[in-house]
Amino acid sequence: MRQSYVAALFFLSLAAQAQAPNQAELQAMAEKQWQSSLELLLDIVSMPNDAVYPDQIETNIKWCEDKFAARKWTHERLDTGGIPLLLVGKNRQGASKTILFYFHVDGQAVDISKWDQEDAYVPVLKSLNTSSKWEPLPIERLKSAYDPEWRIFARSVSDDKGPLAMFISAWDAMTVAGLNPDFNLKIILDFEEEQGSPRLPAAVTRYREKLDADLMLIMDGPRHTSNEPTLSYGARGIADMTLTTYGPKLPQHSGHYGNYSPNPALLLAQLLSSMKDAEGRVVIPGFYDGINFSDAEREIFSNVPDNEQAVQKRLGIGRTDKVGQTYQESINYPSLNIRGMSSGYTGAQATTIIPATAVAELDMRLVPESDPNRLFGLIETHIKAEGFQILSQDPTDEERMKFPKIVKLDKSISYQAFRTPIDSEAGAWLRKAMIRAFDKAPVEIRISGGSIPISPFVDALKIPAVVIPTVNADNNQHSPNENLRLGNYKEGIVTVMAILTEKSF
Amino acid sequence: MRQSYVAALFFLSLAAQAQAPNQAELQAMAEKQWQSSLELLLDIVSMPNDAVYPDQIETNIKWCEDKFAARKWTHERLDTGGIPLLLVGKNRQGASKTILFYFHVDGQAVDISKWDQEDAYVPVLKSLNTSSKWEPLPIERLKSAYDPEWRIFARSVSDDKGPLAMFISAWDAMTVAGLNPDFNLKIILDFEEEQGSPRLPAAVTRYREKLDADLMLIMDGPRHTSNEPTLSYGARGIADMTLTTYGPKLPQHSGHYGNYSPNPALLLAQLLSSMKDAEGRVVIPGFYDGINFSDAEREIFSNVPDNEQAVQKRLGIGRTDKVGQTYQESINYPSLNIRGMSSGYTGAQATTIIPATAVAELDMRLVPESDPNRLFGLIETHIKAEGFQILSQDPTDEERMKFPKIVKLDKSISYQAFRTPIDSEAGAWLRKAMIRAFDKAPVEIRISGGSIPISPFVDALKIPAVVIPTVNADNNQHSPNENLRLGNYKEGIVTVMAILTEKSF
Repeated sequence: MRQSYVAALFFLSLAAQAQAPNQAELQAMAEKQWQSSLELLLDIVSMPNDAVYPDQIETNIKWCEDKFAARKWTHERLDTGGIPLLLVGKNRQGASKTILFYFHVDGQAVDISKWDQEDAYVPVLKSLNTSSKWEPLPIERLKSAYDPEWRIFARSVSDDKGPLAMFISAWDAMTVAGLNPDFNLKIILDFEEEQGSPRLPAAVTRYREKLDADLMLIMDGPRHTSNEPTLSYGARGIADMTLTTYGPKLPQHSGHYGNYSPNPALLLAQLLSSMKDAEGRVVIPGFYDGINFSDAEREIFSNVPDNEQAVQKRLGIGRTDKVGQTYQESINYPSLNIRGMSSGYTGAQATTIIPATAVAELDMRLVPESDPNRLFGLIETHIKAEGFQILSQDPTDEERMKFPKIVKLDKSISYQAFRTPIDSEAGAWLRKAMIRAFDKAPVEIRISGGSIPISPFVDALKIPAVVIPTVNADNNQHSPNENLRLGNYKEGIVTVMAILTEKSF
Repeated sequence: MRQSYVAALFFLSLAAQAQAPNQAELQAMAEKQWQSSLELLLDIVSMPNDAVYPDQIETNIKWCEDKFAARKWTHERLDTGGIPLLLVGKNRQGASKTILFYFHVDGQAVDISKWDQEDAYVPVLKSLNTSSKWEPLPIERLKSAYDPEWRIFARSVSDDKGPLAMFISAWDAMTVAGLNPDFNLKIILDFEEEQGSPRLPAAVTRYREKLDADLMLIMDGPRHTSNEPTLSYGARGIADMTLTTYGPKLPQHSGHYGNYSPNPALLLAQLLSSMKDAEGRVVIPGFYDGINFSDAEREIFSNVPDNEQAVQKRLGIGRTDKVGQTYQESINYPSLNIRGMSSGYTGAQATTIIPATAVAELDMRLVPESDPNRLFGLIETHIKAEGFQILSQDPTDEERMKFPKIVKLDKSISYQAFRTPIDSEAGAWLRKAMIRAFDKAPVEIRISGGSIPISPFVDALKIPAVVIPTVNADNNQHSPNENLRLGNYKEGIVTVMAILTEKSF
């Protein structure tokens, strides 16, 4: 018999059966779809998607509308007052439950000078050579060969366009196999996630009825570093703060006024270092209040097969901050991170001045116990105790003379954390689908370190939410040379199919 | 009698007399020269002069060669292996003494976006309006009007092209009056001062015989803030240091690794804040060793008519560092200043990362008691005591895993301090000339805060050196909107004439 005939018979039998496809069947479906899946992936990452540029985003929105329209899904732009959200949907006749998926389509900014390729939006296929360097391969190789260890390098290929391509590919593979989910599907597509989704919380409240669902599944973020199939039951929230300290009104000659005019960079260094100890722990009283782990929770942490030595080696760090005893414990605490700092000039631009200002950009990752307004309050109390006057704008001449130490504080809350219990109905249902797909229990994470704008949905729709991460952890997300391992792309497609073919909860 | 006839008679009588010109006569000479002096000033500041661009500097060197050749001075480029020095000279028959003047012709870089004019090399005339804002006036106004409070705004107009224009104007005025100095003159012109004069020390040693003189006079830096005629008997030296701290090898997602990967900006903040106390005093043991002031020295400090309240108001600082009890005392100590600091990104570019590195640029201003190698040694001992491994290059993977805290330290010494005793022969001679010009004793400063590359001359030629500062202290030197007060320009010309007409010491 010819191979295609065999395949046709196989898929016919699959559609006819009531049983959800098993591991081998899911694998075969993914194989059949593979070339189309690759085309889709290379296509989606070819569009620049920095949300600082709305024109770039419009191209991405249109792409999504076209792809879902072609598959006979409904689609609707939800006005936010800025870049819109896109809601797409597909109802299943007679279904009583609805699952709402979330992806984001925008990407981090690109500093191409730091990438090992000419254009972050022209995907490059690479393999690791014997000296552990990523070496380009002709992209045409993908038509005739496959190695799960090969990777596609492009901005957003992991964060978060790859997962969307997995979903569409899984849908197509199911269509080919004549399979349909047992529930209604909605997908909300966010185009400003890397900007902190500033308009999303209000939009979720406004469009609550359109978004209504029974379970939310978020496809974003990396698998556990073991690269085993993973379920993540929450994500930290995020808030940020900008601190500006002041020296002389204008930069001054460091000779004439060195030892006389206070230096804003020193003030900032002193303020920042007063907030954390040598082990990276926040020393502001109350910052970690409310966080106490039960034995059961500590067991959840220790069940995660972290290879911390390997992680530290990959990051090139000879020690870790000591907020928690382990990696899992550490991300169950809020963080206070200096993401940027500047004063005067460094490198070739450095000149002999006392700078006029110094700026620190901080981000806080939040857990459900750490209300950002409470943390802001604690930080402000601490800053005042350090002798600083807090202002909300640059000081006037009078304020400069009146207050010995001044800091301007800008703060903003993007969104809170969310956390769904592992021993919930949703957890049991997803675990079952994952075991069918991979014949082993998934790694289950209580809360993941990164932030995704899900708490507005959880709060407005009152539904559980679980993250289905699929991409490799070493994908250089938010950095140059972002990449997606081909094996992860294929297993991601299998993961989506397993969930979409699971009998409704 | 026609006015020009009166003037001619006056100048004839001046040339004939043995007496050096008195205050009124010097004033008249400056007035007669005024229009030419202005043309010269506007001309010299019209040439871009950032020594990062050798083409710009070549234009300036040629300009100097032409101007001195036209006045029948000798001129010679002194090869330094890079941008040359220019030595110009004029011998006086029978003179036994030689004075060596120093000026620099290069200027600070320009960030034009921060200037209130379109081009920092197109000088703009401004007057202060009733709301204390500098308002442009048509430059032609200078042909028919004069207000000592008006200012010319242009890069280098005070630092240090204005003083060179004063010298040439003074020379021309003396030529018109038929006056000659009683000694030989040499001028060394530096075209890399704002770059720290990296090739000057070696060149001074190499060309020691050509530079040989009995007294060195440096025309650079601002007058005392009272804007009274000033003599400065020394200047702090300068050395610098770049500190780089390390976090993860690549920037990492602040969500995934916040609370886990050490943050280089925090490490840098902690290291910097460990070096100084809240009052800006260096707390590294031994840093201020060897500096003790006698009663006589404290009297020198208190004789300087500082209006510290006014300085603080101008700078917009509500307090000062407490290295010294007064401004004068503070600049008689070495300084340790953070001139630049950076990590990750700030402002619109900020992204949610743990940066890979953080960099601080430090400069140290030196006094004769503070050998820079000794200070570097103390700082390195301190950094080690803070738990850092010091490297001279970026860490290898092995070093990253081996050392919990790493700092890369780059250091360089530009030049040492110099200080000539106020009660020296040179001091007495200059004081006499200044009193003749202004009918009052000059403000005398033991050491000025800024650095000028004079210690190589003092060390190689074994001669006293004194600074003759002429420009207004609020000239925005090293900052946007650098300017020169017209009254200072005119008094600077008078100052040079007074010195050049003083009977040889």
